[in-house]
Amino acid sequence: MSPKNPSFVLKSIKDVTFEERPVPKIQNPTDVLIRVNVTGICGSDASPFYPSPVHYWQHGRIGDFILEAPMVPGHESAGTVVEIGPKVTSLKPDDHVALEPGVSCRRCPFCKAGEYNLCIDMKFAATPPYDGTLAKYYVLPEDFCVKLPESVSLDEGALVEPLAVGVHVVRKAGVKPGDSVVVFGAGPVGLLCCGVAKAFGATKVIAVDIIDSRLEFAERYAATGTFNATHSKNPNVNAAQIIKLFDLEFGADVSIDASGAAPSINTCVHVLRTGGTFVQVGMGTTEIAFPILKLCAKEITLKGSFRYGPGDYKLAVELIASGKVMVKELITGRVKFEDAEKAFEQVLNGQGIKTLIDGPLD
Amino acid sequence: MSPKNPSFVLKSIKDVTFEERPVPKIQNPTDVLIRVNVTGICGSDASPFYPSPVHYWQHGRIGDFILEAPMVPGHESAGTVVEIGPKVTSLKPDDHVALEPGVSCRRCPFCKAGEYNLCIDMKFAATPPYDGTLAKYYVLPEDFCVKLPESVSLDEGALVEPLAVGVHVVRKAGVKPGDSVVVFGAGPVGLLCCGVAKAFGATKVIAVDIIDSRLEFAERYAATGTFNATHSKNPNVNAAQIIKLFDLEFGADVSIDASGAAPSINTCVHVLRTGGTFVQVGMGTTEIAFPILKLCAKEITLKGSFRYGPGDYKLAVELIASGKVMVKELITGRVKFEDAEKAFEQVLNGQGIKTLIDGPLD
Amino acid sequence: MSPKNPSFVLKSIKDVTFEERPVPKIQNPTDVLIRVNVTGICGSDASPFYPSPVHYWQHGRIGDFILEAPMVPGHESAGTVVEIGPKVTSLKPDDHVALEPGVSCRRCPFCKAGEYNLCIDMKFAATPPYDGTLAKYYVLPEDFCVKLPESVSLDEGALVEPLAVGVHVVRKAGVKPGDSVVVFGAGPVGLLCCGVAKAFGATKVIAVDIIDSRLEFAERYAATGTFNATHSKNPNVNAAQIIKLFDLEFGADVSIDASGAAPSINTCVHVLRTGGTFVQVGMGTTEIAFPILKLCAKEITLKGSFRYGPGDYKLAVELIASGKVMVKELITGRVKFEDAEKAFEQVLNGQGIKTLIDGPLD
Amino acid sequence: MSPKNPSFVLKSIKDVTFEERPVPKIQNPTDVLIRVNVTGICGSDASPFYPSPVHYWQHGRIGDFILEAPMVPGHESAGTVVEIGPKVTSLKPDDHVALEPGVSCRRCPFCKAGEYNLCIDMKFAATPPYDGTLAKYYVLPEDFCVKLPESVSLDEGALVEPLAVGVHVVRKAGVKPGDSVVVFGAGPVGLLCCGVAKAFGATKVIAVDIIDSRLEFAERYAATGTFNATHSKNPNVNAAQIIKLFDLEFGADVSIDASGAAPSINTCVHVLRTGGTFVQVGMGTTEIAFPILKLCAKEITLKGSFRYGPGDYKLAVELIASGKVMVKELITGRVKFEDAEKAFEQVLNGQGIKTLIDGPLD
Repeated sequence: MSPKNPSFVLKSIKDVTFEERPVPKIQNPTDVLIRVNVTGICGSDASPFYPSPVHYWQHGRIGDFILEAPMVPGHESAGTVVEIGPKVTSLKPDDHVALEPGVSCRRCPFCKAGEYNLCIDMKFAATPPYDGTLAKYYVLPEDFCVKLPESVSLDEGALVEPLAVGVHVVRKAGVKPGDSVVVFGAGPVGLLCCGVAKAFGATKVIAVDIIDSRLEFAERYAATGTFNATHSKNPNVNAAQIIKLFDLEFGADVSIDASGAAPSINTCVHVLRTGGTFVQVGMGTTEIAFPILKLCAKEITLKGSFRYGPGDYKLAVELIASGKVMVKELITGRVKFEDAEKAFEQVLNGQGIKTLIDGPLD
Repeated sequence: MSPKNPSFVLKSIKDVTFEERPVPKIQNPTDVLIRVNVTGICGSDASPFYPSPVHYWQHGRIGDFILEAPMVPGHESAGTVVEIGPKVTSLKPDDHVALEPGVSCRRCPFCKAGEYNLCIDMKFAATPPYDGTLAKYYVLPEDFCVKLPESVSLDEGALVEPLAVGVHVVRKAGVKPGDSVVVFGAGPVGLLCCGVAKAFGATKVIAVDIIDSRLEFAERYAATGTFNATHSKNPNVNAAQIIKLFDLEFGADVSIDASGAAPSINTCVHVLRTGGTFVQVGMGTTEIAFPILKLCAKEITLKGSFRYGPGDYKLAVELIASGKVMVKELITGRVKFEDAEKAFEQVLNGQGIKTLIDGPLD
Repeated sequence: MSPKNPSFVLKSIKDVTFEERPVPKIQNPTDVLIRVNVTGICGSDASPFYPSPVHYWQHGRIGDFILEAPMVPGHESAGTVVEIGPKVTSLKPDDHVALEPGVSCRRCPFCKAGEYNLCIDMKFAATPPYDGTLAKYYVLPEDFCVKLPESVSLDEGALVEPLAVGVHVVRKAGVKPGDSVVVFGAGPVGLLCCGVAKAFGATKVIAVDIIDSRLEFAERYAATGTFNATHSKNPNVNAAQIIKLFDLEFGADVSIDASGAAPSINTCVHVLRTGGTFVQVGMGTTEIAFPILKLCAKEITLKGSFRYGPGDYKLAVELIASGKVMVKELITGRVKFEDAEKAFEQVLNGQGIKTLIDGPLD
Repeated sequence: MSPKNPSFVLKSIKDVTFEERPVPKIQNPTDVLIRVNVTGICGSDASPFYPSPVHYWQHGRIGDFILEAPMVPGHESAGTVVEIGPKVTSLKPDDHVALEPGVSCRRCPFCKAGEYNLCIDMKFAATPPYDGTLAKYYVLPEDFCVKLPESVSLDEGALVEPLAVGVHVVRKAGVKPGDSVVVFGAGPVGLLCCGVAKAFGATKVIAVDIIDSRLEFAERYAATGTFNATHSKNPNVNAAQIIKLFDLEFGADVSIDASGAAPSINTCVHVLRTGGTFVQVGMGTTEIAFPILKLCAKEITLKGSFRYGPGDYKLAVELIASGKVMVKELITGRVKFEDAEKAFEQVLNGQGIKTLIDGPLD
């Protein structure tokens, strides 16, 4: 094992550097030392919940999380096991793994009740003060690594993180075979929600966005239909149009907002059938005008979705392995470790969907 | 049986009359003819969902429902069975019953799936064009009558309707023993939500309102604590204060808004623990400024609650019969049938909580 | 419309005849008159719940249901609408439909709660005293007909009934993407459970039977693996072997018994992981030796599955239409209406999986 | 703190001794050292799941757990905090706590999914090779101690363990206000299930046993009615009689077997309404004759209940504190630490319901 741990460090706004840091140590007997092979980044998903490297790079903060000391960004990674603690039983050196970046406390009532994404003492990679994964080595407890089967590449492994976000959303939405699902926002998270909804058996998966090229991609990727929301400024009109165009009868069974835009969130309510379910995932503005009376009259259930919890990472890997969700299509760029900042610029400029950064070679 | 059916008729705004209408006939073999003994009215709960007699009287419409022809108001009634259809098996003449005022179509997908409150072809008493219960006689299918045991009076029977609203809310909220519940709005529905939450085992039931006298009543009635929301204009500050005052640790398990006021709805989000449930019940303004990002970050579930469904009426009667919820306390006025309009005026002037109108004597 | 209604009538044990009965009339304004085009029969599924025509033909009774008067058998049918009642809105003449054979009372607590398969006053086709569908014409309420899209043939429509049994089972089992499912019994119901489980996203679907040819069919049809239970007489040994062979880690997430055999039912318990779900579907012996202690120690949930309920028929049609479950493969024979009894003999002799009987031509 | 830790040690069958063992040490920064004040024992609940001290004393084993080395028995205890680890935040010295005796691994899929009672690496007190609580001192992680409010005595705290068993059962049964519940077996667990069911709002709670004196106690304690199962040897007859006597209409909503006896388990199926829920809790014989066909035809859900999971201990304490479940009534005997073996003899002889053993004074 190399005694050096080359790391990409964000010192302050748009001030990055490369450092030789010490290789992190296995601290608990169930820890695993991983060589990070590849890390994805995306900019559109900046929110207090998902520590967008680009957002920290650009603004030095996300919500209440403020970059007060140099930090290694990166939290969407796959890697190779190089060393295992003495009590590790499920992994061995050379195994490929997807890295789940939030390590929960395991002790709070939320952890014990099976909602560890709501842990009150979460240590989340690349959220100050915790370093992220844009380094050569990273240590994780065994149970936050999900082994990649041979049929899943390391590149695909780097997309398990955003896919797990989609899995969590679709599970919370309770998507079932035969359901109709409308997804607002055709960025990475929205696209993956489309893919997962289809894998869960949704018969109709309608992607909504305001940019035609994104909708075209969505239809090639996983959507069974698309709708450009520039059709009307009135959410009610758009909802009625979607219901009519796609023959949704009483309305959609499920709506998902992955855009954070107020008009989309309103359309999410109007497009549902009575008794339908609407899941909101991250990224929104703080406060919006909201049709609360309609939600009540239609007895809608609205759920917030936050990160991912028990089994989400595992299922994400299985969905890739079984071919039910394809993720390679979302990879639109790739840079070497030493060019990491270029990836940030690409993402900031809205080039492509998902850019991968290779781990340091040495 | 009397051949006459004295009826209180709302002809147009503030224009009422008494008519001798024909006695309604049993049309299906499972129908029941009921003599209406007592009907409750309340004004504060006007909404598109609950056909407040006072609201129709005052405005001639509720939402899209417009009074276009003379209509009998009233939908919170108890009465005595006078005749049964040939296939009725569960009721006999002289039985006392609470009248469930919405008769569903039994055929639409919502009815068949057990959500008959969402029926697409509901016939709801006192919602145009269907007459309500402020008459001597009323016909209902057997299965929309709930028999009152001897221990439940007809007056209590008239409060089964608003109690069923509360039962539906608390069931949707999933209130469990040990839960902490914060209820906004201490009108009839809010009070009954407090009572039902307590009957469902909630350990802490906090009533929130802006009028001290209502809060005092709530505390005598069912709340374990109260909070006057004039404390702060900032929902966040109020929420933090409630959590601190009542020692709610991470926040409340459940919040219920029965006020329709935007600040309350916002506080409902802020006062919850992560993973908590917020139920909105009727009566709101159409659109409000809403903290969507917080809902997402805390992975809150928000459910609209609309009327009542399978088993709600039956459970409401059982809660009264077993003494788990008391409703007599809410009866603050009573008028004779011929003085029905006086009751409307009382309610409009905010006098008391619930006024009963006796059925016509002859 | 023909004034005659040729009907296949079972008079008593192995005593059948053809009668010209009167054409049934539309009785309610939401009824539909259907020309029956094709009816499936199967013998292996005889049980008090599924009115196997062959079983009545052979034994004159199923459980407490006794053939006391001549009865038309048949309950797995598809047909063509010939006349609609005045209030029918969702169907028109010439539409193809699958016929849901059990018409519920719509009034009992089970119907109103969305569990109409548990209706206390069910009228089920071909269950004495109600005639079944082996006739030229049949009347059903509109909402118990499910329209077949163009992509679904009438033959496939005749298999919607057994497929709906499988849909109900898999829904009750809560099968989710990524689950491992073990299905015991590779007859029609077991095979369809395999198909539906796969459509619901199960990653591993293991079919278990004692006849190799059935297992081979299961593997071609929908199973990802198979196991011959003659491996051992000990359910524990078989369970351990299944877990090992198919790499089920802690055990299967779901087990389904469609065999009714005591050793299978026991293996269903042993093969599950702790916290797993076991669904039993019809057809069993009355009483079996059962490992109750193991069920308790593993905190297993065991659910009985009975017929089909809200949405099951509709989803069955959608699964066929979308290609997620194929049913044509199960059709192994076909006879003309006038040869109906031959089909009974074939089935009794265990020839094939599912035999279709054409409706009368005239 | 005393340097000595007097411990009651079971060396082999009916061979006990008192030893001065070293005081256990706080090993993790979130551990707590507790002085054990009182421990309950009961004999009737021997099963592989609940480590009955009396059973180990009498037989040297429970199921696969074999006493191969001297072990301290005891797992139903309350005590006083004497020392806290450096990261403990919720407890301080002199706090009274109930001790949850099973410490889960926090890492296996069951722990992470919120089912820590199903943990694959559970360390359960008094289950070989782990020592139990019949000693002066015991160490537990902070989050497996539940603080007793002032209104709950240490004696009551010793009954939190069996009460948590009842809480887990009743939660799994989904008991709701208005439900009818039939509980078989009026030993400690059955009685506590009655109490919890009532606290969860069950309107009818019927206790069934074969000993009149136990039924009389049950009725004074929490049951709303009782039934002596010696009425008939036929489970069907007993079930019909219970339904008739207590006016259960279609049958009970929930049945709970806390007896382990085959006739009771059968009656549990027959006494339920269609769609009802039956929970089996520990203690049964390995295999019984079981009416599987009836379970299927009535679409019953049968759940095994195993120990207790997230929140069960906390809720048990709250139910005592709020007066919703009383446990003092179950305490029928008390011995000093040095007389511990006498308590074992009492329990073995069936004297009383629950005997407490005081912790060592010095």
